[in-house]
Amino acid sequence: MYANFEQLSMIGLQADRSICRPALSHEDLQARAWFADQIEEAGFLVQDDDAGNLSGVLRCTNPNAHTLLVGAHLDTVQHAGRYDGAVGMLAALECLCTIQEAGLQLPLHLEIIDFTDDEGTWQPMFGSMSLTGRLNIGRGDMGISSAFRAALTRAGINPAHVTRARRDPATVAGYIELHIEQGGRLEKTGVNIGIVNSIVGRKSYRVLFLGQTGHAGTASMVERRDALQGAALFVTRAHELVRTHFPDGVLNCGDLQVRPGTLTTVPGEANVIIESRHVDEEQLASMEVVLRELAQECAFATRVDTSFVCTNHIPAAHMAPEITEAIELACEINEVSSLHLPSYASHNAQVMSTFTPSGMLFIPSVNGLSHNPEEFSHWEDVVNGTNVLLHTIIQLGFSLP
Amino acid sequence: MYANFEQLSMIGLQADRSICRPALSHEDLQARAWFADQIEEAGFLVQDDDAGNLSGVLRCTNPNAHTLLVGAHLDTVQHAGRYDGAVGMLAALECLCTIQEAGLQLPLHLEIIDFTDDEGTWQPMFGSMSLTGRLNIGRGDMGISSAFRAALTRAGINPAHVTRARRDPATVAGYIELHIEQGGRLEKTGVNIGIVNSIVGRKSYRVLFLGQTGHAGTASMVERRDALQGAALFVTRAHELVRTHFPDGVLNCGDLQVRPGTLTTVPGEANVIIESRHVDEEQLASMEVVLRELAQECAFATRVDTSFVCTNHIPAAHMAPEITEAIELACEINEVSSLHLPSYASHNAQVMSTFTPSGMLFIPSVNGLSHNPEEFSHWEDVVNGTNVLLHTIIQLGFSLP
Repeated sequence: MYANFEQLSMIGLQADRSICRPALSHEDLQARAWFADQIEEAGFLVQDDDAGNLSGVLRCTNPNAHTLLVGAHLDTVQHAGRYDGAVGMLAALECLCTIQEAGLQLPLHLEIIDFTDDEGTWQPMFGSMSLTGRLNIGRGDMGISSAFRAALTRAGINPAHVTRARRDPATVAGYIELHIEQGGRLEKTGVNIGIVNSIVGRKSYRVLFLGQTGHAGTASMVERRDALQGAALFVTRAHELVRTHFPDGVLNCGDLQVRPGTLTTVPGEANVIIESRHVDEEQLASMEVVLRELAQECAFATRVDTSFVCTNHIPAAHMAPEITEAIELACEINEVSSLHLPSYASHNAQVMSTFTPSGMLFIPSVNGLSHNPEEFSHWEDVVNGTNVLLHTIIQLGFSLP
Repeated sequence: MYANFEQLSMIGLQADRSICRPALSHEDLQARAWFADQIEEAGFLVQDDDAGNLSGVLRCTNPNAHTLLVGAHLDTVQHAGRYDGAVGMLAALECLCTIQEAGLQLPLHLEIIDFTDDEGTWQPMFGSMSLTGRLNIGRGDMGISSAFRAALTRAGINPAHVTRARRDPATVAGYIELHIEQGGRLEKTGVNIGIVNSIVGRKSYRVLFLGQTGHAGTASMVERRDALQGAALFVTRAHELVRTHFPDGVLNCGDLQVRPGTLTTVPGEANVIIESRHVDEEQLASMEVVLRELAQECAFATRVDTSFVCTNHIPAAHMAPEITEAIELACEINEVSSLHLPSYASHNAQVMSTFTPSGMLFIPSVNGLSHNPEEFSHWEDVVNGTNVLLHTIIQLGFSLP
């Protein structure tokens, strides 16, 4: 498994030691091709669906059996590390190999699945949204960009056929995913495995500030309507507000674009892209209310106009008790410590949980770093996680209907 | 003259009614070609130099006479209005036509000059810097970009020959320029003509904030090192600081660029482009000191690093008393009110003032708007300004050595 990890870590490797495998990029497709080879070499069936989700299937003897999905993703953000997504895929493959080699006959089909665009290069959770039938892309109401359409087509995915990836939930027994924590709670408490009980809801917004362009030197310092001053005040105060009033909430202002963006012109437009997260949907809704009010206040204080548009909402999700209990038992069997915790990152398990009983386990991330080339997990923790995943799959194989 | 104004306003006209004639662009070159035609039709000599400055010359009978330059510019910023630069060129042409038609014999050569890249699309005041010999582009120490080189070459300007545009100051008698105010002081006070006594010094800076990228959901809200939080705090506080402690100073944060600039990653880098202006060079230097300290404070408060680099400095300039007095007298002759004021915008007169006695006059801008499609001056004010310019040229023609 470590040799596989080293090989996968070379795909999309940049000069600065970061990994770039944005969904549907050449590097992402290269990683998929490599992974398909591994599935084939291990003797499993390679499949892909109309949303580009790539699977390796170990079929049981009963053709009418349900399928236990074991997922993760091979795509990354730009300048990512090596562990996010990748260890989940490799652990899943390792588990299936072990089960096959042991000659273990489970009454369920087992399917490893690499979901398309987990990271949202084009559309977050595109693959699991397609599989669960929550995407209406083919009907033209998803506002899909022509660039995304082109990227899909380049990757051999027909945008008009994506909805065909939808599965019948009656054929699926459950979903499980191993992932790095991407935070510091396991490391800080010295615990080996995190058992996810819920996954944060996410709402993202485009907050536009509209002022008036003018000459940088001659427009009055007191009267100028500078869109960037509105946006900057909002970014500063939004973080203060969330830190103070939503201690369990998370805010990220990921981008700020200024127009026209020249030294000699007072900015006429500033566009802030933000995202809020909370495990409690009511709190997430409250965050929206106060952030929306804050944008108005900041615009008023800086004499500019504002608009606040929600661009995405992924509701908070709860993991299925039958799966979290199986993980807990698997930890006991493997004699590793565990901790129940919420996930502040979104995962395909969040989308899958609306469709089939779903669960997730985390392994520790050193310094809590992720989406960063310095992302690191001790290999011992990867191995612990894989063993827990294996025993969870075996238990679920016998217990899930 | 109004017909000329209407024709020139069509060159670079965009669908949003703004004008785009960035220096050396197709539209800028088209405007120059059109203006050269006007010079020729009026019976003046068309000249251009090795920096692309375009001139129309009315020679006097004495071949050894000095030259009075009457300048402005045909280039614009992106999404500009119709008056900035353009009215100065058209007024200069009108004055020369009137002098020629009146058969007035001045003891000086008169030269209208369109300076290349006043607005700084590539390098602010490129044309006047070349003419005054302050540009060392040919010696390769100006850090000229390959894109700028290509743009020069496309416009028929050989980058290696630009220094040949340098003139001998002994051949030049003086420089005068008519421009729109680009501010609201004349309009507010109901005064017809602004007589510029000094032009602000400008210093521009690149203020970089360096944090650490991380997962937007899992990096601790308290411990994350978010470069955009540093930059946003700086933008907000820098404006407060200048408004409070430098009431005669001007600050513009014209752009802010975030990297990687994605929703799901804590910004690792935020680059703010700022410019400060002051008519007093000592105050301009004090502004630099406090802005530099402020960047450090904001970086410290948000747990990020910062660097503060000065990218350009155009010192404050004082206009020549013999020219401002001539403008004052011309206002009296024309029975229009006038006001002495500093210019918060840079102009070629600023560069020219280090080389030859220089002066400027402003006409009112409605609502003080400039660098904006809504830029407007009443035509009556353009005519007033042109008459004052004419009488100033005639006076200087007889008084300058």
